[in-house]
Amino acid sequence: MRRVAIVGVGHGKFGTRNDVNLAEMAWEAIKEALSDAGVTQKDIDYVVYGHAGGWSSEPMTPIVVNEYAGLYPKGALRVEAACATGTAAIKTGYDAVASGQADIVLVVGVEKMNESPTPTVVEFIGRAGNYFWEFENFGLTFPGYYALYASAYMARTGATEEDLCRVAVKNHYYASMNPKAHFPRKITIEDCLKSRYIAWPLKLYDSSPITDGAAAVVLASEEIARKLTDTPVWIKGVGYATDTANLSRRPDFKLRRASVEAARMAYKRAGIDPEAPHKQIDVAEIHDAFTIAEILTYEELGIAKPDEGYKLVREEQTMIGGVLPVNLSGGLKAKGHPIGATGVSMAVEITRQLRQEVEKGRQAPINNGVGLAHNVGGTGHYTYVVIYSL
Amino acid sequence: MRRVAIVGVGHGKFGTRNDVNLAEMAWEAIKEALSDAGVTQKDIDYVVYGHAGGWSSEPMTPIVVNEYAGLYPKGALRVEAACATGTAAIKTGYDAVASGQADIVLVVGVEKMNESPTPTVVEFIGRAGNYFWEFENFGLTFPGYYALYASAYMARTGATEEDLCRVAVKNHYYASMNPKAHFPRKITIEDCLKSRYIAWPLKLYDSSPITDGAAAVVLASEEIARKLTDTPVWIKGVGYATDTANLSRRPDFKLRRASVEAARMAYKRAGIDPEAPHKQIDVAEIHDAFTIAEILTYEELGIAKPDEGYKLVREEQTMIGGVLPVNLSGGLKAKGHPIGATGVSMAVEITRQLRQEVEKGRQAPINNGVGLAHNVGGTGHYTYVVIYSL
Repeated sequence: MRRVAIVGVGHGKFGTRNDVNLAEMAWEAIKEALSDAGVTQKDIDYVVYGHAGGWSSEPMTPIVVNEYAGLYPKGALRVEAACATGTAAIKTGYDAVASGQADIVLVVGVEKMNESPTPTVVEFIGRAGNYFWEFENFGLTFPGYYALYASAYMARTGATEEDLCRVAVKNHYYASMNPKAHFPRKITIEDCLKSRYIAWPLKLYDSSPITDGAAAVVLASEEIARKLTDTPVWIKGVGYATDTANLSRRPDFKLRRASVEAARMAYKRAGIDPEAPHKQIDVAEIHDAFTIAEILTYEELGIAKPDEGYKLVREEQTMIGGVLPVNLSGGLKAKGHPIGATGVSMAVEITRQLRQEVEKGRQAPINNGVGLAHNVGGTGHYTYVVIYSL
Repeated sequence: MRRVAIVGVGHGKFGTRNDVNLAEMAWEAIKEALSDAGVTQKDIDYVVYGHAGGWSSEPMTPIVVNEYAGLYPKGALRVEAACATGTAAIKTGYDAVASGQADIVLVVGVEKMNESPTPTVVEFIGRAGNYFWEFENFGLTFPGYYALYASAYMARTGATEEDLCRVAVKNHYYASMNPKAHFPRKITIEDCLKSRYIAWPLKLYDSSPITDGAAAVVLASEEIARKLTDTPVWIKGVGYATDTANLSRRPDFKLRRASVEAARMAYKRAGIDPEAPHKQIDVAEIHDAFTIAEILTYEELGIAKPDEGYKLVREEQTMIGGVLPVNLSGGLKAKGHPIGATGVSMAVEITRQLRQEVEKGRQAPINNGVGLAHNVGGTGHYTYVVIYSL
């Protein structure tokens, strides 16, 4: 198997992007990634698009962006795995280089969710659980799904709504130093606790926003990477798993099995000790679509023991200086969650953290040179985990 | 790079499948492919779904099928490249095995287009050219796009509507021997010439139908393939390219550049002489979404000289006994074109042809043990070409 590195990263401004169309927005990230890697469109062998789509009437995002960005006639495809789309695209690009089919692959994550009327966005995302049974019959959408997890968690562990809000406060704090974030501003526990309920116990400030955004990475084989950069960021291990469409077919509302399985696979491939991964990992980006999801993930990744994840955030152990800094970008919660772009944005953030080039105040101490990205689709329907290292 | 083989194939009945839901239809093909490979769900490392989707309100096809088919917690993703979706999925599965990330990958192509009201199907497919400019402003849908190519071709070469119809007659003739085909019956030149115009010079019988269907293949590494089967069918070379979204930005309405480029790449990787590929290739499946597309493809693949493709079908050179038998399955035209399933169906057909196990009367003579699949998305927006060999 060939080694594969990230040799260039690009990241557009996340937010409500009525100032650009989809291709223009994608190009912001692509241009920066090509420039960062020191390559041009001619050098690219294949383009993988992470894009959920469905927000507008234009279904051919890869082709429209390929044309606008001067990337045709390069081969391309679109990859989708619900909210884990971006990391599924990274994995697809990784395989293309690792296999020897391509030397340099561009991975583009892009989503323009605000093109769709808002009720349609909520419905569209809501369908990505199990449509025909749970959405159509019970009216479950994602705040509802995660409210089930949150209320079960609180009943089981004694965690409080305040503990959930601590995740939002932490992630907004770091977003306040990230100019690419959708909401680069701090909030207080009181702001969060006073925000309106979406689905008890989850409130507006427990929830990630509807965001437009794009991110891009250039992947290269070892031979090429050594020529292009002094700081390649290697993909050391990729893990992935799925779970049942119907939540009613899962054994409980405790840990999400796909998340546990994907982490185990990634750890095994990267040589990370699953009993204490935070002893080897310097920094992590975690799929905090809702605050409860970040707390569950601490446990699924083995950073906290089962039912004790909330203590990590209560004790500020996932801030800089704690056992493992998490979501120093602001996370989905405050950086934003443009579906297909999210996993690619995580790869950009981990790369910049490992290179120690993010804004002051949100730079993790880099000791082992190892970072983790954790990306979930649905309610643990898909999970992809990637270990990156210098 | 690890060698990768098809070790199992499965193919459901193509047609209007109101008798099954999407997961049940996918399972027909999956079950047959697993059984043919002599493996079970437990043996699968990763599942790649080729699925364009958008026909129903259920967006999570991979997860719903993974649950129904007992494939969870296996990792999965969805791949889309318009009508080339199926072969993009084959390429994605190939990379996963060739890279060493997986030993056994299941590739599932599935589409249930008849769940959507008919006007929506036509509109939905029509958007897959360039939506905002060409569809919205000029009302172009796919019969219109290919009518532009057909009328330019006829003006340039002297080919007639009768020549176009010959493609349909040939493909229906072979479909009549394929029980999995949507329309397993013969038609005459007169039937075709008398059928109503969709977009001059293309008539109903020049056009592929709206079809439900599923196909599946099991891919394995060389080590595993040698254990599982005496007749592995190797993926020898994959080629891919894209072209502009806007047809107005292409230099002419002659050959589709993405098709030419993809074939060149596949030939180079597989060691096929691009000047006379038919001397090495025994059998081909070609993307005959419209009859003109099959004729153009003869030229794009180098089987015919530019502007002489129509002579091949006029002289019956793409029937059994000619220079290269094409679409012995019935092709998109008569076997049907369930978008995501089409490329996977091509892989199933070529595998069965090379193993010499298709129905009598439509089995190609296998001399070199080499087959070709050619899959186009949009009007040459995407093209994927794969060379298979014993």
